[in-house]
Amino acid sequence: MAFADRLNHVETSAIRELFKLLGKPGIISFAGGFPDSAMFDVGGIREATSRALAEEPGGALQYGATEGYQPLREQLSAFMAAKGAQGVAPDNLIVTTGSQQALDLLGKTLISPGDKVIVEGPTFLATIQCFRLYGAELISAPIDGQGVKTDALEALIAEHKPKFVYLIPTFGNPSGALLSAERRKAVLEMAVRHQTLIVEDDPYGDLYFGDAPPPSLLGLSASVPGSRELLVHCGSLSKVLSPGLRVGWMIAPPELLAKATMCKQFSDAHTSTFAQATAAQYLKAGRMPATLAHVRQVYAERAQAMGDALRRELGDAIDFVPPQGGLFIWARLTGAGGKVADGNVFAKRAIDKGVAFVPGTPFYCAHPDHATLRLSFATADVDKIREGVARLGQAL
Amino acid sequence: MAFADRLNHVETSAIRELFKLLGKPGIISFAGGFPDSAMFDVGGIREATSRALAEEPGGALQYGATEGYQPLREQLSAFMAAKGAQGVAPDNLIVTTGSQQALDLLGKTLISPGDKVIVEGPTFLATIQCFRLYGAELISAPIDGQGVKTDALEALIAEHKPKFVYLIPTFGNPSGALLSAERRKAVLEMAVRHQTLIVEDDPYGDLYFGDAPPPSLLGLSASVPGSRELLVHCGSLSKVLSPGLRVGWMIAPPELLAKATMCKQFSDAHTSTFAQATAAQYLKAGRMPATLAHVRQVYAERAQAMGDALRRELGDAIDFVPPQGGLFIWARLTGAGGKVADGNVFAKRAIDKGVAFVPGTPFYCAHPDHATLRLSFATADVDKIREGVARLGQAL
Repeated sequence: MAFADRLNHVETSAIRELFKLLGKPGIISFAGGFPDSAMFDVGGIREATSRALAEEPGGALQYGATEGYQPLREQLSAFMAAKGAQGVAPDNLIVTTGSQQALDLLGKTLISPGDKVIVEGPTFLATIQCFRLYGAELISAPIDGQGVKTDALEALIAEHKPKFVYLIPTFGNPSGALLSAERRKAVLEMAVRHQTLIVEDDPYGDLYFGDAPPPSLLGLSASVPGSRELLVHCGSLSKVLSPGLRVGWMIAPPELLAKATMCKQFSDAHTSTFAQATAAQYLKAGRMPATLAHVRQVYAERAQAMGDALRRELGDAIDFVPPQGGLFIWARLTGAGGKVADGNVFAKRAIDKGVAFVPGTPFYCAHPDHATLRLSFATADVDKIREGVARLGQAL
Repeated sequence: MAFADRLNHVETSAIRELFKLLGKPGIISFAGGFPDSAMFDVGGIREATSRALAEEPGGALQYGATEGYQPLREQLSAFMAAKGAQGVAPDNLIVTTGSQQALDLLGKTLISPGDKVIVEGPTFLATIQCFRLYGAELISAPIDGQGVKTDALEALIAEHKPKFVYLIPTFGNPSGALLSAERRKAVLEMAVRHQTLIVEDDPYGDLYFGDAPPPSLLGLSASVPGSRELLVHCGSLSKVLSPGLRVGWMIAPPELLAKATMCKQFSDAHTSTFAQATAAQYLKAGRMPATLAHVRQVYAERAQAMGDALRRELGDAIDFVPPQGGLFIWARLTGAGGKVADGNVFAKRAIDKGVAFVPGTPFYCAHPDHATLRLSFATADVDKIREGVARLGQAL
């Protein structure tokens, strides 16, 4: 069978093989990129669905507008305002089938084969593959513990004149890094200076452990004239409420939003109105603040436990910035004391000891740092985290 | 803003303008392509969701496999067998976000810019736009009251060597036509003869009014050696249960299914597990046969009422084959007695008289027949249908 040329640009995920091993009995997994099912507010979701089916069964079960179910767009507009992004009217956003679809629509709408897109190195694996399917040439911008290095980013923008820049500024995947307020402002200013579109992917921003992080790029855009018209913001309920609903959203300038809506019409007509009506009722019921408070507290404890255990068990053989939110610790093997310094080698040894994580290399679109690894603290409880990290110590 | 080149191949739907007029007070609409909300089994769906959340909340709310929620794949396998397509194992299908996404995945997986695809003239509007976004050059195969003309189709296949042929053999949209058993066999035989992939889109096959239609191409493929490996079958719960769930499926040869799954991973990760678990419980509860029986009976009455009224009110100025299933009457203005013979002109006059339908021209990818129109009998009750057709008579 002859497939489309665009499939030559992607390969089956290198970490698929690893994930097959996760079924081994007794494995403690730090490999996933998902929230803990035990924290889903099942009762609240059940109530929300019941209300949706009782109050407007037609709306929840019939075809809907490609742009999204209007009551949900209104709730999301209010949700964004509560997070510090004022002035996002319901019509300034479309509902997407998870934020993965927002990425796909950006690719479909914006990327012609050969177009350049700048992403962080490392960045979200499915972003790399998604954009490559549309023929993008990806350029890697370096990061440190404070997120993307803005001087380097600006030099890359000037050199490559990309179609857009894709960033996860808040508790990035896999980096866990929090882009500083100063750098956020710098990103918006360079967007205006170079008239470059910036895509802010923000699925983790609500999962902070202590003080709230700086405002999103979207929230800050009010203070940088001309930046709002160059900004796309992708949000999601997946990490804070439930991935299974597949409810995300995209905020973008009107012209881009209209084109993305047209593309979405031919991608899946619209996002499940059944899921949208449920999400709308959930937000309307006002349960989100308590849900977020609970999730933040649990993940904060787990992050702390993992950080402490890593210091204790692996000492100076590993280096990392303790995360202030999100789901991940991004770490680097130092090779101190002649210990293993390659993430892939370490991952295989770890599996043999009964613990799994994802080595860092697949998260780079170019020039991978082979010493890196991503550890999720989201799905194992504190005892399991301690036991898993002890096994990591043995594997090292 | 500079958009991707692929957007140059599509235009905003010509019938969007028409749909804006549907909000006019008192309009009777035969324009929609959707089922009647009043027939949704709301109670059954509520029960199914409750069971899904009670029995396996994690499965309904967590991330799931891109291929689909396994209990739903099992139910759909059984559903296909009950409809006469034996031997479709759960692993032979993937769940899609409505059958629209199956079309999108076929485009993404198979179509390189400039590739040829043969479709019926007329065919489903969103198929035309979906494939064009991937750069397909569409070739139009003529139809009559028995569906696609197979001699003409074979000549086009021989001439154009298309990437694939897309057909809606059973109660097509907009044609309403039922492809005869003889022609079905001919299609499968020419697929083997020319080694051409055939895509069977089948959202309406369950909506028959009298006897069941001939088996689907998929069902028949067992009797034509070598045809099964050249066949894709797209199914959907949208027309028979609820479009809002966005649950469709695609059955395809393993190699194609694997590539489509990879593409789906970067399109939306997976279809809402919340909707999938609900659909699985609904099918498992055994409610579908009664739901189908009810829907068939109501639509049969409405189709009959519309056909009778058209004969009575429009006489020999209109020509159509009474549908044996589906949602649509596809008609042709004859111009008899000097009456209007252009579907677009007639549509405008009809709106002035308080009744809406879709003129036929947008359904053609080439060489439109301007005398055609599509009338949906699905969403208006029998009294409204009679009143609406009387208005059509006045408009004529």
